Amino acid sequence: MEIFGTIAATLTTVSFLPQTLKTIKDKDTSGISLGMYSIFTTGVFCWTVYGFIISDMPILIANIVTFILAFTILMLKLKYK
Amino acid sequence: MEIFGTIAATLTTVSFLPQTLKTIKDKDTSGISLGMYSIFTTGVFCWTVYGFIISDMPILIANIVTFILAFTILMLKLKYK
Repeated sequence: MEIFGTIAATLTTVSFLPQTLKTIKDKDTSGISLGMYSIFTTGVFCWTVYGFIISDMPILIANIVTFILAFTILMLKLKYK
Repeated sequence: MEIFGTIAATLTTVSFLPQTLKTIKDKDTSGISLGMYSIFTTGVFCWTVYGFIISDMPILIANIVTFILAFTILMLKLKYK
């Protein structure tokens, strides 16, 4: 059943790529919630620390990737707000 | 170290609430990526199934809540696109 968790983690991580690319391209952040990306980026940072502490590579790698994508969206929201 | 994972899960789940409320209120979905919410909602659904299969209540509950919020955003994106 590990495979189901792997698919789930891959999808939720990869999903932030189209949003990041769209926001870079369109510079349209009016509909994006600053609250969401502030809280989400903090949460993903905590996930990364957690993955590091418990030495879980899938959690660590998935959250480093998600952090980079979500942090980029957060910075673009702050820039174009 | 469980507490760190709990904080992380709570933050990443709760973060979708301000986005959902903002989108319901503003009806502004132009900057929101359909690709992101399509893939993300599918991924969170997989997480929910995974949590159910391995009988992990925190994964199950966190992902049911996230699914409701993300699915609402996806439906609003389709409605106001």
